[in-house]
Amino acid sequence: MIPVLHSYFRSSTSFRLRAALNLKGIETEYRAHHLRLGEQRSPGYLKLNPQGLVPALELPDGTVLTQSMAIIEYLDETVPEPPLLPKEPVARAQARAMAQMIACEIHPLNNLKILTYLKTEFGAGEEAVAVWFRHWVAETFAPLESLLANRPVAHAYCCGDTPGLADICVVAQVTNNKRFAVDMMPYPVISAIYERCMELPAFQKAAPANQPDAE
Amino acid sequence: MIPVLHSYFRSSTSFRLRAALNLKGIETEYRAHHLRLGEQRSPGYLKLNPQGLVPALELPDGTVLTQSMAIIEYLDETVPEPPLLPKEPVARAQARAMAQMIACEIHPLNNLKILTYLKTEFGAGEEAVAVWFRHWVAETFAPLESLLANRPVAHAYCCGDTPGLADICVVAQVTNNKRFAVDMMPYPVISAIYERCMELPAFQKAAPANQPDAE
Repeated sequence: MIPVLHSYFRSSTSFRLRAALNLKGIETEYRAHHLRLGEQRSPGYLKLNPQGLVPALELPDGTVLTQSMAIIEYLDETVPEPPLLPKEPVARAQARAMAQMIACEIHPLNNLKILTYLKTEFGAGEEAVAVWFRHWVAETFAPLESLLANRPVAHAYCCGDTPGLADICVVAQVTNNKRFAVDMMPYPVISAIYERCMELPAFQKAAPANQPDAE
Repeated sequence: MIPVLHSYFRSSTSFRLRAALNLKGIETEYRAHHLRLGEQRSPGYLKLNPQGLVPALELPDGTVLTQSMAIIEYLDETVPEPPLLPKEPVARAQARAMAQMIACEIHPLNNLKILTYLKTEFGAGEEAVAVWFRHWVAETFAPLESLLANRPVAHAYCCGDTPGLADICVVAQVTNNKRFAVDMMPYPVISAIYERCMELPAFQKAAPANQPDAE
């Protein structure tokens, strides 16, 4: 038996987990939950994940893991090669911090349920929602670009010469940005890292367009 | 020399880090940055942390660590006792997931810069902002309560008999909730864990009211 990956093709956090699984070479059975149709809130799925969010990873023994960043740390602890975090504690902290800049400062503000709330409760129009989206990307991508541009060594990826947790978050976010026409010109280092990752089969296979439920 | 803790008394992420430092018994020099006065965006601080956020931990060698969750993982890796995460990978994943439910689904939506944006850009009044705050707490506290209530063993803390990463996030969030009069009646297990933590000196000393910059 192999783990079941509960996913939605367009979900940015599902993209993160798919990329990590591919980098680790872990095969899964893909199970789609259509977020716009609210399938993640079906009674059956809520029994697996009371938060009603994707992704979730259902292990062969029935254990369900949730929250993309926690699942990726689990994968890194249980399938050590290739590592998704550096070995040394300060370097690990810096890699996690870059990942969390995206996971805790951009993505939570820009996912579907938030944008829907802005529209329904604050009467925000499409343009106001796009401005909101781009605002929070810029607030974090500007310092992230500066951190990456000022690294002592200009590694191919965020934190080394192989892709890891921070790169995974960068790729999922840059992909998401395209839906709101974020101007990437101010972020040449982030853009180069994104392009470099997208040359790798692990990221290509994880991309939204290449999922069974892609529209 | 001891590390410098860049903090703001009321910042929920600073509270997390202060609690973790206290649990580990690590002394720091406290340096306050008044968020409402924008001190975190002074050129001097931006040189330390281009994101202009607190907390940050400045190590004696000048290394600056950012993002509360990444810093706490660093502390746990470099000062192993007492552990803030369980030993076993699935248990670690579950503890991190609980912590991230708060760190990635509630706090990012409810901090000062977001509430300010809602007021200035969407014309949200105090009541609409409070409704927003409470909405995102409820969206995540309901499933978190259910996860905690259904644990195979009703540990004193979220994931065991000593407080850890998930408890730290719970305590900081519940404290934050008080500012928006969140009704905690639906969350008896979360409330009991909060109360139990607040009996410990490590959490008491970390509380906003007990910081040098408290108003």
